[in-house]
Amino acid sequence: MKMTTPARGFPVSEFKNRLAKAQKMMNEAGLDALLLTTEPDVRYFTGFLTRFWESPTRPWFLIVPANSNPVAIIPSIGVELMGQTWIKDIRTWRSPSLTDDGISLLAEALHEIIGTTGQVGIPMGHETSLRMPFADFQNLTNAVAPLKFTGAANILRNLRMVKSEAEIAKIRQACTIADKAFTRVREIAKTGTPLDEIFRQFQILCLQEGADWVAYLAGGAGQSGYGDVISPATPIPLRQGDVLMLDTGLVWDGYFCDFDRNFAIGQPTNAAVTGHCQLMEAVDAALNIIKPGITAADVFHAMDKIVTGGAGGSDAGRLGHGLGMQLTEWPSLIPQDHTVLKEGMVLTLEPNVQTASGKIMVHEENIVVRANGAELLSKLAGPKLEVL
Amino acid sequence: MKMTTPARGFPVSEFKNRLAKAQKMMNEAGLDALLLTTEPDVRYFTGFLTRFWESPTRPWFLIVPANSNPVAIIPSIGVELMGQTWIKDIRTWRSPSLTDDGISLLAEALHEIIGTTGQVGIPMGHETSLRMPFADFQNLTNAVAPLKFTGAANILRNLRMVKSEAEIAKIRQACTIADKAFTRVREIAKTGTPLDEIFRQFQILCLQEGADWVAYLAGGAGQSGYGDVISPATPIPLRQGDVLMLDTGLVWDGYFCDFDRNFAIGQPTNAAVTGHCQLMEAVDAALNIIKPGITAADVFHAMDKIVTGGAGGSDAGRLGHGLGMQLTEWPSLIPQDHTVLKEGMVLTLEPNVQTASGKIMVHEENIVVRANGAELLSKLAGPKLEVL
Repeated sequence: MKMTTPARGFPVSEFKNRLAKAQKMMNEAGLDALLLTTEPDVRYFTGFLTRFWESPTRPWFLIVPANSNPVAIIPSIGVELMGQTWIKDIRTWRSPSLTDDGISLLAEALHEIIGTTGQVGIPMGHETSLRMPFADFQNLTNAVAPLKFTGAANILRNLRMVKSEAEIAKIRQACTIADKAFTRVREIAKTGTPLDEIFRQFQILCLQEGADWVAYLAGGAGQSGYGDVISPATPIPLRQGDVLMLDTGLVWDGYFCDFDRNFAIGQPTNAAVTGHCQLMEAVDAALNIIKPGITAADVFHAMDKIVTGGAGGSDAGRLGHGLGMQLTEWPSLIPQDHTVLKEGMVLTLEPNVQTASGKIMVHEENIVVRANGAELLSKLAGPKLEVL
Repeated sequence: MKMTTPARGFPVSEFKNRLAKAQKMMNEAGLDALLLTTEPDVRYFTGFLTRFWESPTRPWFLIVPANSNPVAIIPSIGVELMGQTWIKDIRTWRSPSLTDDGISLLAEALHEIIGTTGQVGIPMGHETSLRMPFADFQNLTNAVAPLKFTGAANILRNLRMVKSEAEIAKIRQACTIADKAFTRVREIAKTGTPLDEIFRQFQILCLQEGADWVAYLAGGAGQSGYGDVISPATPIPLRQGDVLMLDTGLVWDGYFCDFDRNFAIGQPTNAAVTGHCQLMEAVDAALNIIKPGITAADVFHAMDKIVTGGAGGSDAGRLGHGLGMQLTEWPSLIPQDHTVLKEGMVLTLEPNVQTASGKIMVHEENIVVRANGAELLSKLAGPKLEVL
């Protein structure tokens, strides 16, 4: 177990390596460039890390040409920060502009880099979106025609799914911080504590233990389980016999952890004890089979067999997913996702089980796929439900 | 000054009122429905509040028909929570699905509600994006043709820019929490404290004072000012003569504040003292002219005259913006935004000034436009730069 804090940022070689792989894929797919618009995609090739994306106002563009270095076309407010990355070609305008929010500058750059014909890939598949005004995309399409926008051949998906050791170290660090915060839940939760106060205090614990920020916290509490796992906290106080669940996606140097822990408030009900046992058994089943070459669906079935007897899942929709620069990434642990696991993929294992009518429990761990099996990034919970 | 905590959520009448206004606008614009895909737009008509949108995996759809109640077409993981809102017609599927992630269900609903021809508005103007895979939008377009997607006639923009008293109360609450946290900065920042530790501790202060979560924190520190206002914190310790700036967008019941404060670490430089004076003078100039009927551009010019002598702005791009369900919303305080201010609009006043070569200072306050002028939601900073 590594206990030293990893370095922040990446060496330039990491970005050059990502670029080389992307360019190989672009050439195979017949793409002249990629046009990227979202926070993780832009950051993946540049290292541009800022919480400013919380503001939806301004568009940000990165062109990744098939045969040269990336070109950033970004609002002037971001030039200072982008100038600290390895990106040398940074073009800018004073955004927001109501008449031309970077579109003519972007069109000009595309023409200069690619020429007047060619194929520009934009991520348009599952789990992606185009982060720019749709009307501006229509204007851009007209401005650069006959140059064409087409799908990005899953290049971002295929690249980002497999993490480098430097990325894994950051995710592990995020997990270690969350592990420490979970160890301290007994300081903040007991019979009578309102759930919303626990949410507030748990975020404080995450920050105290070293999170840069707490991008996500969900949870629930109730007798033998909870109704769902995405609701905001209510002021309802914890009662004896409740199961408390906290699920956090905290961020360290731009990388997420995403796992939860369940706690019994006083003596747990039999349903809760059994539920937790089943969840841990499901996680064990996944841990036992994970290795390069099996599929996301295989991992799903290993867990589903235990939590539903092989019924094919539940309304949660999946039993885990990829993890990295975003709280959730490809692949999905569902029957129809036949993505083959590779070394360096980081996954969450997230089985859920019905414990009573309208009540569920969910457990989640984070792992990385290694040549010889799964390596845990979160500290595996014990088979016994922790009692507070 | 109201000091009581406002109620969480909204009465159903608030949503019915929003819907009635939207439907009037839709009928005027010849739209049969709106299709909404983003967190704030879906929440605006439903009250559906969850941090789960942090996960980019699943699409969420809300149809707002011109003549009937909204219909939610959402992943099954969200049905429990959506069922707690006033929305009655909730249709669902087990997302993620790699073959049909809600698209056939959505197409069917559009046909049922509108018929086989008609116009569906989607927000596609400034500060919007379409939060669904672009390929799925193409599939949807084909599936429902000759029914057409067109612009949403700025309906969301025009509705959301003017806040109800219940919304203003939530923003005021967020501001009050941030005010209290800013009062305590001297507890966490002094010569020698690394900036990243201050960021971590300031988020803790925001949570301790009652924030639900801290969606945004930026800032900077340096002699006489800082290089930019969007960079993440470095571990560089504060020095005597530094100006420390913290800019937070914390959330209370789904509504943001967005303002900053500057602090001098020990004796400030003359440039910093002068910079702060100028910024407060610019804010005063804006406060003196704001009333219904003037434009966003008028407010820009009032401040720009003081911070640049009327040069027309800086690379920050604007001198303030709308605020509410998002950290930044329409309008923009820029020369080309001629949006007429109305009662109930919530704005940030955010002048910036160059204090030295490559150094700026930024100050920000939050206000609501009232019949007789601006009402401050943040507690106006004094003319003297606060020394820690």
